[in-house]
Amino acid sequence: MNNSDQYTLKLRRVAIDTYKENVAYLHRNCAIYRTEGFQALSKVEITTVNGDLAQQQRVLAVLNVVDDERITQCDELGLSEQAFAQLNVEEGHCIRIAHAEPPPSISAVHRKIAGERLDLEDFRGIARDIAAHRYSKTEMAAFLVASSQTGLEREEVLYMTRAMVECGDRLDWGEPLVADKHCIGGIPGNRTSMLIVPIIAAHGMLIPKTSSRAITSPAGTADTMALLARVQLPPEQLREIIRCQRGCLAWGGAARLAPVDDILISVERPLSLDSQGQMVASILSKKLAAGSTHLLVDIPMGPTAKVRHMGEALKLRKLFEFVGDRLGLHIEVVISNGRQPVGRGIGPVLELRDVMQVLNNDPQAPADLRQKALWLAGRVLEFDPDVRGGQGYAIARDILDSGRAMNKMHDIIEAQGRNPETVAVGRLRHKIEAQTDGFVTAIDNLQIARIARLAGAPMDKGAGVDLMKKLGDTVKRGEVLYFIHADFPSDFRFAQEAAAKDIGFQIGKKPPDGSTEPEF
Amino acid sequence: MNNSDQYTLKLRRVAIDTYKENVAYLHRNCAIYRTEGFQALSKVEITTVNGDLAQQQRVLAVLNVVDDERITQCDELGLSEQAFAQLNVEEGHCIRIAHAEPPPSISAVHRKIAGERLDLEDFRGIARDIAAHRYSKTEMAAFLVASSQTGLEREEVLYMTRAMVECGDRLDWGEPLVADKHCIGGIPGNRTSMLIVPIIAAHGMLIPKTSSRAITSPAGTADTMALLARVQLPPEQLREIIRCQRGCLAWGGAARLAPVDDILISVERPLSLDSQGQMVASILSKKLAAGSTHLLVDIPMGPTAKVRHMGEALKLRKLFEFVGDRLGLHIEVVISNGRQPVGRGIGPVLELRDVMQVLNNDPQAPADLRQKALWLAGRVLEFDPDVRGGQGYAIARDILDSGRAMNKMHDIIEAQGRNPETVAVGRLRHKIEAQTDGFVTAIDNLQIARIARLAGAPMDKGAGVDLMKKLGDTVKRGEVLYFIHADFPSDFRFAQEAAAKDIGFQIGKKPPDGSTEPEF
Repeated sequence: MNNSDQYTLKLRRVAIDTYKENVAYLHRNCAIYRTEGFQALSKVEITTVNGDLAQQQRVLAVLNVVDDERITQCDELGLSEQAFAQLNVEEGHCIRIAHAEPPPSISAVHRKIAGERLDLEDFRGIARDIAAHRYSKTEMAAFLVASSQTGLEREEVLYMTRAMVECGDRLDWGEPLVADKHCIGGIPGNRTSMLIVPIIAAHGMLIPKTSSRAITSPAGTADTMALLARVQLPPEQLREIIRCQRGCLAWGGAARLAPVDDILISVERPLSLDSQGQMVASILSKKLAAGSTHLLVDIPMGPTAKVRHMGEALKLRKLFEFVGDRLGLHIEVVISNGRQPVGRGIGPVLELRDVMQVLNNDPQAPADLRQKALWLAGRVLEFDPDVRGGQGYAIARDILDSGRAMNKMHDIIEAQGRNPETVAVGRLRHKIEAQTDGFVTAIDNLQIARIARLAGAPMDKGAGVDLMKKLGDTVKRGEVLYFIHADFPSDFRFAQEAAAKDIGFQIGKKPPDGSTEPEF
Repeated sequence: MNNSDQYTLKLRRVAIDTYKENVAYLHRNCAIYRTEGFQALSKVEITTVNGDLAQQQRVLAVLNVVDDERITQCDELGLSEQAFAQLNVEEGHCIRIAHAEPPPSISAVHRKIAGERLDLEDFRGIARDIAAHRYSKTEMAAFLVASSQTGLEREEVLYMTRAMVECGDRLDWGEPLVADKHCIGGIPGNRTSMLIVPIIAAHGMLIPKTSSRAITSPAGTADTMALLARVQLPPEQLREIIRCQRGCLAWGGAARLAPVDDILISVERPLSLDSQGQMVASILSKKLAAGSTHLLVDIPMGPTAKVRHMGEALKLRKLFEFVGDRLGLHIEVVISNGRQPVGRGIGPVLELRDVMQVLNNDPQAPADLRQKALWLAGRVLEFDPDVRGGQGYAIARDILDSGRAMNKMHDIIEAQGRNPETVAVGRLRHKIEAQTDGFVTAIDNLQIARIARLAGAPMDKGAGVDLMKKLGDTVKRGEVLYFIHADFPSDFRFAQEAAAKDIGFQIGKKPPDGSTEPEF
């Protein structure tokens, strides 16, 4: 009938994990490769050959050309793990391959590059095409850079958020109040979630918070929690735990909510792009997909935080409020003190120590971590219509002091599956001392985080930085400002070298003036 | 001494061609993968382990995780073909792998995203890092989108061009006049190079022009020339041919001049980004690297050309002149008539037919192709100080009419290696007829190119479109406007469907007013 037979290949699974990018493998001597003029890295569309056209599956991939029959033979088309799973047919199935057309919505990306404003349908098209894996990484980078450069207007952020929510599953908890709390990040040691979740859940309020792993920071909540319990749980089991315990401290990556956001982040993170618009769309689409009805957003502000000035913080707050209000999400935004790390430890084991001291009401516990967690937990508790305005903090403190928060933490650990191993603080230790007498007038979040990462955090759980002094403390020449911990000599050396160049502390003659700063 | 041994792996060549992107393959059960927390798609740096540190080789790659020991074993690190070639050591060599730091110049890209102007040192850093394969595709996309969105100022285009030239080899022909000609593209059938090169070379002027393959067009000069002779030649042999014959018609991709441009184009093309600044930097860096001293640039202008208005054409002309002057390249820019395809045939075999008719002085030869080639060749000939201003056209015509251009073409074909095969015009033929009486008032370059590509061009050499009518011709209802040629039924059907939706011709009651248009 037509020449379609000559285009048919047998599907093969190639056991290579290419993460969020689909790759197809075609042998260089494959007749189709030669006649069709495919080029390595060209985008191809792979379609199953079925009797029934309606049941055709398709998947898009980037092409790699193979010269080894052990990987892919001449009559085969290989697919990387993720692409194979998406196509969802057996090995050996007949498939066809063709040049892929650019995604239909790419014209909207070009209009954005030219500085135009996009409408809801444009964003719907972009989100749909990204969810269908029709965008290459470079096409996504083009979209993200174009939206971060001229910026997105607030209506565009709303459209983007709505489009992203529409493209994924959305959980429904069947309850009128589903709380969540989110910090925009950037402050080392800021492990308040591990305190807030037990407090809120102990109060009985539903808080299905999922957490992230560290990407560019020395530890994420999921990295720290992994020291206590399993954090990678099947979505069904996770939902069951949340229903029983009213909260959880698990990794959110497996839930497959807001798939567009996951895909965009895989490009955004390595590029260190952080436009306010993309950040708000990313956070709110995830929370809406997770079924949240009430959200507390924490924006730490400080000279080395993500947000550095009050004007910027207010602009971001208003953007959260604008989009949240229009999408039916009750949002409270707090601007917190981001001038220095929270707590003492930086790195999974060291941060866990701080958290457990607070939960245990240990007198050694870092006061700032305790205070910040209680303040935020109090604000979340006030989402409860039965809690009188201004009473949240006292309720949170009572839950913590009475040991109910610690009991809830143990219940959550048992439900997720306790980790029997214990990991010690890194055995190699180096002290950084003050070179002069005075007061600590500044601590550089970025440099301290960098030193902790070079020491091995978060992969080396025991590695990191342990702060002995905080802002405003008096120091004498020779006193220890912080310790660097590591397990591997090379990491240890890198971290010491970085600290030798810039210790990340400033010592001044007068104490810093914090009178205009937020209290927490 | 330290823990470096545990990080050592054996190098393996993985026979996968990943084009301009280096890929490293690590087995999922490799101890290093597990302890270092690499993620698929993270960027890694691979270093050879040598006694002498000064001889260490390094290469950057994107990581893919392997679950099949036939591809990469647990104690091995696999590298894709290009990355393996870059590292330039034997299989089995000891190597070390580490997280790659972002390229040092990425901070300049972030400043460009924020709308800042970059200086020469910034562009030098970017070009150096790209040449060293330190940029991922997404990082390059970020740079390209940022430079195309706010645009590059003309000084920035100059810096970019200079930095790109500095990063590659530069040919020196040892002659005072090395001519070249370049068209910015976008007009189907515009195969003037295959006429201009023989004319100029027959005159004795050196014209080391290399050509491209079609990426988004129905044919490139290299695709069409490949029907007559070998076009993929080793750089040394190519230079020898040029010295002997004074010119060539070969593919330029193997020369490895201007490596930064080659890498950027591999990202730019699939994204269809075309900022004037990037275009000028790309063209001029290539010509400077090829050793050209005199360059004629052709900017076709028309409603469906790349450049659509005289203002835009003039701006582009001035940008070419500004950068060329400062880099010591003598530039002439002509703005040509880009309202319709040049010649009759569109697609390799059909375009070759037109070219050979002109070279043979065949009365059937398309007059517009002949005239445009003579006009451009005349302008190039006038680079010769011995040619009087205004005499170039007559000299070019004499070379063509006397058969000297055809003789030179045969010499070039023999020197490159004659292709003994002949390829016929596609055997499937479909005619597109006028639906009404009148005049041809517009021909859509983009739609005609699209139909030719859907019919199979350039991979199917005989496929394409053969125009029977051009702008201003009178037509009667039922007369043939053009034929579609194809070899494969599915391509044939796609092309017919596209033409049924939009034939790409407009027929009006009055002839079009071309009085204000450029003659050629």
